[in-house]
Amino acid sequence: MAHPQETFSRTSFPSSSFISRRRQVVYENTLLYQLNVLKTTGRYEAFKLEWHPTYDDKPNVWPVPNHLFWDSDVAKWIEGACYFLQWRNNAEIDAAVKELVEMIRSAQQPDGYLNIHFTVVEPAKRFTNLRDLHELYNAGHLIEAALAHSQHYQNDLLMEPILKYVDLLYKTFGPGPEQKHGYPGHPEIELALLRLYTKTKDPRHYAFGRYFIEERGNPKGQYGHHYYDVESEARGESSNERPVYLPASQSYWYQQAHVPIVDQHTIEGHSVRAMYLLTAVADLVRMEGTDVSNPKLDALHRLWSNMVDKKMYLTGGIGAMKQWEGFGIDYFLPSGTDEGGCYAETCAAIGVMMLAERLLQLELDRKYADILELCFYNAVMTGMSVHGTQFTYVNQLASSESDLSKRAEWFTCACCPPNVTRLLGYIGGYLWTSNLVDQRLAINVHMYSSAKLAIPIGDSTVEIEQKSNWPWEGKIQFALRNTSAAPTTIRLRIPGWATQWKISPAPSSTELVNGYLTLSPEWLQANPSFELDIPLQPRYISPHPYTNQDIIALARGPLVYCLEDVDNPWVNDHFKGLVLDPAGTINEIPASIPGAEEPYIGLTALNAASFVKTDSGQSPHRPPEYITIESTEEVKELHFIPYALRDNRGGRGQMRVGIRRKH
Amino acid sequence: MAHPQETFSRTSFPSSSFISRRRQVVYENTLLYQLNVLKTTGRYEAFKLEWHPTYDDKPNVWPVPNHLFWDSDVAKWIEGACYFLQWRNNAEIDAAVKELVEMIRSAQQPDGYLNIHFTVVEPAKRFTNLRDLHELYNAGHLIEAALAHSQHYQNDLLMEPILKYVDLLYKTFGPGPEQKHGYPGHPEIELALLRLYTKTKDPRHYAFGRYFIEERGNPKGQYGHHYYDVESEARGESSNERPVYLPASQSYWYQQAHVPIVDQHTIEGHSVRAMYLLTAVADLVRMEGTDVSNPKLDALHRLWSNMVDKKMYLTGGIGAMKQWEGFGIDYFLPSGTDEGGCYAETCAAIGVMMLAERLLQLELDRKYADILELCFYNAVMTGMSVHGTQFTYVNQLASSESDLSKRAEWFTCACCPPNVTRLLGYIGGYLWTSNLVDQRLAINVHMYSSAKLAIPIGDSTVEIEQKSNWPWEGKIQFALRNTSAAPTTIRLRIPGWATQWKISPAPSSTELVNGYLTLSPEWLQANPSFELDIPLQPRYISPHPYTNQDIIALARGPLVYCLEDVDNPWVNDHFKGLVLDPAGTINEIPASIPGAEEPYIGLTALNAASFVKTDSGQSPHRPPEYITIESTEEVKELHFIPYALRDNRGGRGQMRVGIRRKH
Repeated sequence: MAHPQETFSRTSFPSSSFISRRRQVVYENTLLYQLNVLKTTGRYEAFKLEWHPTYDDKPNVWPVPNHLFWDSDVAKWIEGACYFLQWRNNAEIDAAVKELVEMIRSAQQPDGYLNIHFTVVEPAKRFTNLRDLHELYNAGHLIEAALAHSQHYQNDLLMEPILKYVDLLYKTFGPGPEQKHGYPGHPEIELALLRLYTKTKDPRHYAFGRYFIEERGNPKGQYGHHYYDVESEARGESSNERPVYLPASQSYWYQQAHVPIVDQHTIEGHSVRAMYLLTAVADLVRMEGTDVSNPKLDALHRLWSNMVDKKMYLTGGIGAMKQWEGFGIDYFLPSGTDEGGCYAETCAAIGVMMLAERLLQLELDRKYADILELCFYNAVMTGMSVHGTQFTYVNQLASSESDLSKRAEWFTCACCPPNVTRLLGYIGGYLWTSNLVDQRLAINVHMYSSAKLAIPIGDSTVEIEQKSNWPWEGKIQFALRNTSAAPTTIRLRIPGWATQWKISPAPSSTELVNGYLTLSPEWLQANPSFELDIPLQPRYISPHPYTNQDIIALARGPLVYCLEDVDNPWVNDHFKGLVLDPAGTINEIPASIPGAEEPYIGLTALNAASFVKTDSGQSPHRPPEYITIESTEEVKELHFIPYALRDNRGGRGQMRVGIRRKH
Repeated sequence: MAHPQETFSRTSFPSSSFISRRRQVVYENTLLYQLNVLKTTGRYEAFKLEWHPTYDDKPNVWPVPNHLFWDSDVAKWIEGACYFLQWRNNAEIDAAVKELVEMIRSAQQPDGYLNIHFTVVEPAKRFTNLRDLHELYNAGHLIEAALAHSQHYQNDLLMEPILKYVDLLYKTFGPGPEQKHGYPGHPEIELALLRLYTKTKDPRHYAFGRYFIEERGNPKGQYGHHYYDVESEARGESSNERPVYLPASQSYWYQQAHVPIVDQHTIEGHSVRAMYLLTAVADLVRMEGTDVSNPKLDALHRLWSNMVDKKMYLTGGIGAMKQWEGFGIDYFLPSGTDEGGCYAETCAAIGVMMLAERLLQLELDRKYADILELCFYNAVMTGMSVHGTQFTYVNQLASSESDLSKRAEWFTCACCPPNVTRLLGYIGGYLWTSNLVDQRLAINVHMYSSAKLAIPIGDSTVEIEQKSNWPWEGKIQFALRNTSAAPTTIRLRIPGWATQWKISPAPSSTELVNGYLTLSPEWLQANPSFELDIPLQPRYISPHPYTNQDIIALARGPLVYCLEDVDNPWVNDHFKGLVLDPAGTINEIPASIPGAEEPYIGLTALNAASFVKTDSGQSPHRPPEYITIESTEEVKELHFIPYALRDNRGGRGQMRVGIRRKH
């Protein structure tokens, strides 16, 4: 079973593209910038198990110590670093990885335990709070780091201690009478264990990942009660004592543990937890095989549909609720803080990509790839500045005085920056997938760029190369070089938003199957070079009417656009009162982010602006005649920039994606 | 200083009107119905201080025992009963009041303490949790009951023990070094003490009410810390232990105690608490006099404006947030549960009326009276069924599957039903206010009905009578009978929504001052009978555009209308997808609630219905062309009924006030 974290190495980026430039920035700037932050904040040396002053700090969010995730911050940095080293060596990064691995090895306890906080600060509290205290989450990221490390370095220096740690955990947690029937509050180890199994083929790794998934939400799992209830009581907590992210006692929907997954009907709770969990469930379904009906697959489909149809923002972002960093009710999707909230955590959109990729492996359907691409080019890529040294955690669709559209240099809870970094390390594994069955090769192209895929078949290699200026231009030239004996089929995704598209030469059939166009081995033999042309033009998008937001946003290709004050300096109210006329002319303006040589297409709407004005004379009522739309002579042009490229040019941090629509 | 709870007795309702019929229902049905509920639930006998099985129950909302408010349920019933007895005797009600007073007298402790829970259940915990446990709230309602009792019965049987209790409280709480510097979590006693002062003229009662108001929110009030922090620590609570209605530690905005009132800039927290508090502040401002600028008055104006302009529903209801039964952020006003929430507690709208009446006394401005009337005829009157035996607590503007538009017979927290009852007992005090200064009488008419006001001046009486079919018809006939020597000025409120109005005979000037028309003594002498005609016709109202709700609701006069499934049986989605064309014809249809002889004007919109349909094909995006408005042949008529009269005719509980607007 293939994972993008392995297959990415078959993809190279021979010429400049949006994706290659993002990778270049990470390689040149971000990895070293993050390494420096790890060092200055104390994370780098934390596996030396020495006391750090921050261990004394009161938690920002009780009961989670501020340093609790340091293990995973380091692990994710190592993982991303190894993906990039696999592409191109770098002495400084390589030295840091080696030094970190040494420290991790030295931090392991004799019984295999490997965790900073519960060794240095609270050694007696090991495994006493799975619900809140991220032990297994940290372990999962260490597993993923070990997989990346061993894949690049081809040695077991990190894998060895991690396997020993997994052995300890496998003894501790499980269905046996002497075991704890627990499962992580923050899913991550499940997907890590299943990936570990694909490498080690050790059936215990498979069983362990499966156990965590299937035990989750068992209402009687421990002593006839819910594990988290028992665990909490054992900690001596009163039932009215709870973290701020749990609105009431036993809010186990927060971690998708309120009922077993197969009984969950809507997607709830913390978004990142949900995505990591469902990604693991999808891998488990893949491993179980899809020959027979599988309630877990039904659950995946149900929860995916609920999320995409009713709980996803225009940018692909998920999570409206700040309190629990997660999903609200159906259709509750306000644009920003002063309209009811908007969270859309960067890690969560990365999680959507992970899940979409897995679902795409289970079923080749463009609906998954459309979302994957939507998230990548919007809710994920907005998470990093063009220079790769500033990040976002929360990605609102409209700014406000209390929450400006601005990135930050780091975060106390630093999960997002290294998540973006490692994603860009193995992004090649998302562009396309391939499988070889009965000596027949199928290549499914999901994302467009300038990239080359090389698949070894026996002594030969099948190479497919695409050249394009995606996402700015929609013309992609393909060349297939197949010296093997394997007949090769190529399926090309035609995005759902593409109103027109053309293949040249013309294929025998342009019928799409679940949004993919099939190019047969025979046709490809005759036409090893071909071109797909998807004209990219501005279009309007809106959320569902039940969101009660009568707004339109501009999109072009996979990109969603926004207004920023930098281009529209007249703004003073975060574009709240602006009314956009969809009948206005839209011009495409090639531009570039100054100082970064990052080209983009700006969109300018001409004579499309007016403003809503309301008399307050009859509060709380506004008779409709009191609500007027006033056109303006001042604002003749509205300049839009891709949401992913916002906040790269200074400004006051005023931004909005969806604008009030003019009727 | 006059209060409506005293002045109401000057108002009589000689002929049938909406208000008189509501009062009749309360007198004939509701008081006895509520008395029976008091008896069957255990409240009636609770002042006998015997154990009741419910005292063992786990609280629905920790830490508030379910029976904690029983004192105030009884007190409010007594209060309402006395107002009605003052109008018309009733042997059963009278006997019950007397018996209850006996039990209350017998429940008083030797030191004056008088509280059911903290005598029977937790006597050692007296005064240890002002933040959550309603001791002073209960005491305040007992004071109000004593005032009503003594006003009707003209004896001190209830006043005596209450004054003794107040003495104990006055010793316990205050600024002195040996005193507790606390103040109630739920304001109520402040307004009760100030009313008590107007009767007793005991300066301690004034000082006590003032102390509670001014000490509130003092960040260093007790031992250099916030009183609630100190109190909580003394209880041994961890800082992570808190009720579900407090989203985080020290959420003192919930009870408007985060900072002193004069420093509060927006209205926050639990709505009823806010209204009772500000009502008391307004009384304090009245007592302090308005000659000099008063920061408390500035705060009142600020908070009132914030509430009415940005945090009030079309019905006058306040409070969007269920979690804390109170205010959300500016402009966050979803219609119902499945759109983000809607609370609009009945008691809170009554509180708005109380505050509006006080502000009207400070400043004769129709903006206060418009809100007072809006609340009365919508958010308050919707709280009781036409037969007076079913009630609402929460008053949403749209139903949903989880929260149907249905009243209930009672509530565990039973504050709303007796609040409606007692309000209708003294409603006469809201219709008009009067003052006699230098032997000149001014009568300000705020609400219209059929009613008579009799003001004794020396040996004479000035009588003003209004006759109308308000709120169904807008023609009001007035007759002034002034046998006194006092020149009498009448000011008539012209509602803000009145597009036309006419006085006949024509007065010399029709200039309004703050929305009131002044009729001079000279003119009245020449025209003691006159008529005000305010044509009532249907009109549309909307919320502010920043609520992001592009909806229109129908209104006529002071009434806001809604759709119910009873009249529109085709509905199956709580009118969520319905689109209303404001250009459609509206017919007025006289109707009556069957079995209740309660007439009303229904409104029927002809050929005004269509439905929004959305294709989900590009989730999360809906290209605008995917959102279609489909007209329908089936639904030719939409039948609206006043929101106050909903759920009186059976049905499935599907209801909506504001409908999606057709452009």
